[in-house]
Amino acid sequence: MINVLQVGLGPIGLQIVKYITERKNIQIVGGVDIDPQKAGKTLNKLCDFNAPEVPVFASVSDALKKVTPAVAILTTVSKLTQIESQIATIAEHKLNIVSTCEELTYPWYTAPEIANRIDESCKKHDISCLATGVNPGFLMDYLPSVLTSVCQRVDHVAVSRIQNATPRRKPFQQKIGVGLSRNEFDQQRAAISHVGLPESVWMIAGALQWELDNVKETLQPVIADEKITFGTEVLATGKNRGVEQIATGYRDGKEVIVLKFRAAIGEQEPHDTVAIKGQPSFTSTIPGGVNGDVATAAITINAVRSAQKLDAGLKTMLDVAVPAFSL
Amino acid sequence: MINVLQVGLGPIGLQIVKYITERKNIQIVGGVDIDPQKAGKTLNKLCDFNAPEVPVFASVSDALKKVTPAVAILTTVSKLTQIESQIATIAEHKLNIVSTCEELTYPWYTAPEIANRIDESCKKHDISCLATGVNPGFLMDYLPSVLTSVCQRVDHVAVSRIQNATPRRKPFQQKIGVGLSRNEFDQQRAAISHVGLPESVWMIAGALQWELDNVKETLQPVIADEKITFGTEVLATGKNRGVEQIATGYRDGKEVIVLKFRAAIGEQEPHDTVAIKGQPSFTSTIPGGVNGDVATAAITINAVRSAQKLDAGLKTMLDVAVPAFSL
Repeated sequence: MINVLQVGLGPIGLQIVKYITERKNIQIVGGVDIDPQKAGKTLNKLCDFNAPEVPVFASVSDALKKVTPAVAILTTVSKLTQIESQIATIAEHKLNIVSTCEELTYPWYTAPEIANRIDESCKKHDISCLATGVNPGFLMDYLPSVLTSVCQRVDHVAVSRIQNATPRRKPFQQKIGVGLSRNEFDQQRAAISHVGLPESVWMIAGALQWELDNVKETLQPVIADEKITFGTEVLATGKNRGVEQIATGYRDGKEVIVLKFRAAIGEQEPHDTVAIKGQPSFTSTIPGGVNGDVATAAITINAVRSAQKLDAGLKTMLDVAVPAFSL
Repeated sequence: MINVLQVGLGPIGLQIVKYITERKNIQIVGGVDIDPQKAGKTLNKLCDFNAPEVPVFASVSDALKKVTPAVAILTTVSKLTQIESQIATIAEHKLNIVSTCEELTYPWYTAPEIANRIDESCKKHDISCLATGVNPGFLMDYLPSVLTSVCQRVDHVAVSRIQNATPRRKPFQQKIGVGLSRNEFDQQRAAISHVGLPESVWMIAGALQWELDNVKETLQPVIADEKITFGTEVLATGKNRGVEQIATGYRDGKEVIVLKFRAAIGEQEPHDTVAIKGQPSFTSTIPGGVNGDVATAAITINAVRSAQKLDAGLKTMLDVAVPAFSL
């Protein structure tokens, strides 16, 4: 039985708590959240499902006076600058970390100084720190890296994750800017932008041991060219129906990796596809795509077992043995 | 630069030699083959491509008096009973091993006593031993295990590898019994049978930590129900056009893993497909499938890097970090 401290009780954190209650070999021994509305209650009080009656603390330090987890699952922020101090604190308490922080999945090239400081902090306290998730962390970086295992030569890797936002929840539709005008989209680019796409490019390059010249990222609105009815709502022609984000890696002046993420109302053929050009060339497709909400919580839990076997330091999905569902 | 001793200079061994000559960070320092026609020559003499001018020895012991490899790539036999003593000899010389021996990919349940003896021998001499390949080793075991990483629950795993033998070389067509009558097929079942399918079932179960009741395997001819013309040849109605082999794993009396391998002349839609039922359920398909000859040689070479980082003992693909193309 692996004892987990769940640090961060937002939507992803609570979904992980829910999923852990359905598992046999892993359990939550406490929660941590800085929200004063949450700390001091039991986890069960914060959940609309049958969560364990374990305490929620205001800090990791407070938690470790009362409970003895082996691993902290850290689902607080997406940005590396914000998570660095959180990792340092957990490291001092000698807990291995599995995180969903997008920028932490492969920060060696996007933020090498912070990555090195986190790595040193983890090594100093003899813990491992691994970030995972469905994207970044699996579909657009780890899985394509795995697929190159059967290649004698790789010339180009293209990954596309195309999602139909029509059946998704309102917050997801709002996140991708559904219904906005072009001007409104431009004003809200920072909030609309999916975090972690450049990190995925760098992870694939790392797997292939390619030194890239640079990685470029673009973000475009997807404009409705006809009226779209979805659920009880109507999207007028010319309004935004979603987002298309592309990250491209260049090596010796040539495009070698291109990752396309598109999520929009009315997408006709959602899918997750990896296309490898080389020897052999082949395409691997998941028609319909993988549900991101389920998958991010699931792979985070599944990665706990693999993470327990890691050497100390900041690690990535390229360092772990196959997570696989198991706990 | 990783120095490799290529042990076994049959078709797979020679293809690995060829592919290594195309790589940058790995090189062959010698070959080993028991065939007296081969030992004593240079590797280049045995190849129809520009192989290195390195010696071919009659035994690993002879080789290690002259060359200093870090890894032995072992491509001699498919059967565990035959490879055990070969591994023991290489282990005594303290070389890490990467092998294509099909029964070695996951022998923990099919032949636990031999597996344990190999494991002990490797640990005693502080070396690692890993078997890989495209099938077994990747498409029907490792890749489905990887795909379960995004699952909160797995109920059933089905993998199908459907190959069209029409464009393949004559030896492959002969291997799968093309042109045989039903009687001839039955007489030649042992030679036609693809080795390693039960091992793949057990590997998936191992990844999911499922205790299986048992694994059953069937082997059936695929009979032409009409005349088929392929190349300059004609297959009459009623003759065999290939093989269908199915391995099924049962847990608590229920089928939970089913692997179907079919290779036949005139297969219309060759593919490699993994279908997972659980939360979420999804299917991943490689239309056309992955070329087995290229892929087995390539993944064996790619796995050398991952294998160098393994602890001592008999390891499987479930123990290594993502091989990925890189060397």
